[in-house]
Amino acid sequence: MTTQQLVQQIRQKKSFLCIGLDVDLTKIPPHLLALEDPIFEFNKAIIEATHDLCVSYKPNTAFYEAYGLKGWTSLQKTINYLNDNYPQIFTIADAKRGDIGNTSTMYAKAFLEDLNFDSVTVAPYMGKDSVEPFLAFENKHTIMLALTSNEGAFDFQTKNVEGEELYKTVIKTSKTWKNSQNLMYVVGATKAEYFAEIRKMVPNSFFLVPGVGAQGGSLTEVCQYGMNEDVGLLINSSRGIIYASNETDFAQKAREEAIKLQQEMEAIMKF
Amino acid sequence: MTTQQLVQQIRQKKSFLCIGLDVDLTKIPPHLLALEDPIFEFNKAIIEATHDLCVSYKPNTAFYEAYGLKGWTSLQKTINYLNDNYPQIFTIADAKRGDIGNTSTMYAKAFLEDLNFDSVTVAPYMGKDSVEPFLAFENKHTIMLALTSNEGAFDFQTKNVEGEELYKTVIKTSKTWKNSQNLMYVVGATKAEYFAEIRKMVPNSFFLVPGVGAQGGSLTEVCQYGMNEDVGLLINSSRGIIYASNETDFAQKAREEAIKLQQEMEAIMKF
Repeated sequence: MTTQQLVQQIRQKKSFLCIGLDVDLTKIPPHLLALEDPIFEFNKAIIEATHDLCVSYKPNTAFYEAYGLKGWTSLQKTINYLNDNYPQIFTIADAKRGDIGNTSTMYAKAFLEDLNFDSVTVAPYMGKDSVEPFLAFENKHTIMLALTSNEGAFDFQTKNVEGEELYKTVIKTSKTWKNSQNLMYVVGATKAEYFAEIRKMVPNSFFLVPGVGAQGGSLTEVCQYGMNEDVGLLINSSRGIIYASNETDFAQKAREEAIKLQQEMEAIMKF
Repeated sequence: MTTQQLVQQIRQKKSFLCIGLDVDLTKIPPHLLALEDPIFEFNKAIIEATHDLCVSYKPNTAFYEAYGLKGWTSLQKTINYLNDNYPQIFTIADAKRGDIGNTSTMYAKAFLEDLNFDSVTVAPYMGKDSVEPFLAFENKHTIMLALTSNEGAFDFQTKNVEGEELYKTVIKTSKTWKNSQNLMYVVGATKAEYFAEIRKMVPNSFFLVPGVGAQGGSLTEVCQYGMNEDVGLLINSSRGIIYASNETDFAQKAREEAIKLQQEMEAIMKF
């Protein structure tokens, strides 16, 4: 998918919502556990109830790997279901991978070719040759960790590196990499005051923004500092939507939560 | 496995060799491709030919994920084969994972519980709460990226952070985390001159050392600067051993390469 297609979808749906499909068997409605593939059935119901309200789905691979082969089967069925039924939706493999060049190529193939996601998240610690293999895929996107939404973000990401915070060095350096136009960045919503500066550094890039809702970030503040002309934001919500209820009405309740966020987004886009 | 058991094995085998099982279907002997699970058959043959010469095996998860469900089946069969037949061998899931707390817990379960590896590699960028969930597993080990062997290591890892290189800040900070006694560190062999300083910072920790052989690092230099009383090193070789031949003699040739390294190690341990 091209960035332009993503922007078009955002304008059509008046939404820049990304729904995180982080499926934990201990949190989903118990009646689903009797089914053959509870994770996939849960995802399918969530997707059916929310696909007109969001522009992106983001399964976090950890939640699938934790269930071994069964989990990978559920992941594969989920991405296939999305690609078959909603090809206009931007899919993110939230995998946070990164390794030496030939190994990163294997990861890129796994997520961007074999599973055919539109994008994958990567970690920057190993530098240029660990990220460029992902960037080589045309019309695919690599979403690199810049400033994350967790407490540990302050351990290294905000440390002063030769006059500026590490996450700024990471963003600046990444702009020099081959095919850097395929980069997006993870920027946590819990640090809204940082958005203005980051936006200046990469005016045209999309940010994937975790931390709204469950982790306490404010949508309005993020938009105030982080939006660009193409919106340029994908606001992720996982638990706040998918676990809105763990009864048989879970999909309906997820839809209600997604509507709330979509309406907030529509109001902000009008403004 | 406890660190003591690992050290005992090193002394018995007079080896601190780790063999990387990075199986690429385009590089293994073509006659194996006719079999039902070529990756597992390849691994089994390599393991049978080398298990008395090495103390550890390290499958890199990228090479399995690239083949989707089939790849995960091969990974599962490989670790089960190791645990069933050679439980004294230290197994490493080279996965380089790391995410916010509840997600890292899922990764930790995937590799340390479900697949039952002895250890897993992790990336430090997201800080304390992304690594501590791995450290919570008793008699399991978390091998954190410190200074890697690739070119991109110089993009961020060696950058000056408030008076010292980032990788040093990473190591120092990690020592303050809960259950930090379960930490080991990835330190690339291509930077042997750095070993002395790193060893001073963490005198008792094991280092997983990639980059000897294919990537040009010197075993003698690494040992000169990096060894401690318990050896404290796991020297990884992947391609140099497993792809020594791609004919029907591949396992025998892999053994010959492993013998060369084991003998070098024995000589160094005597010295």
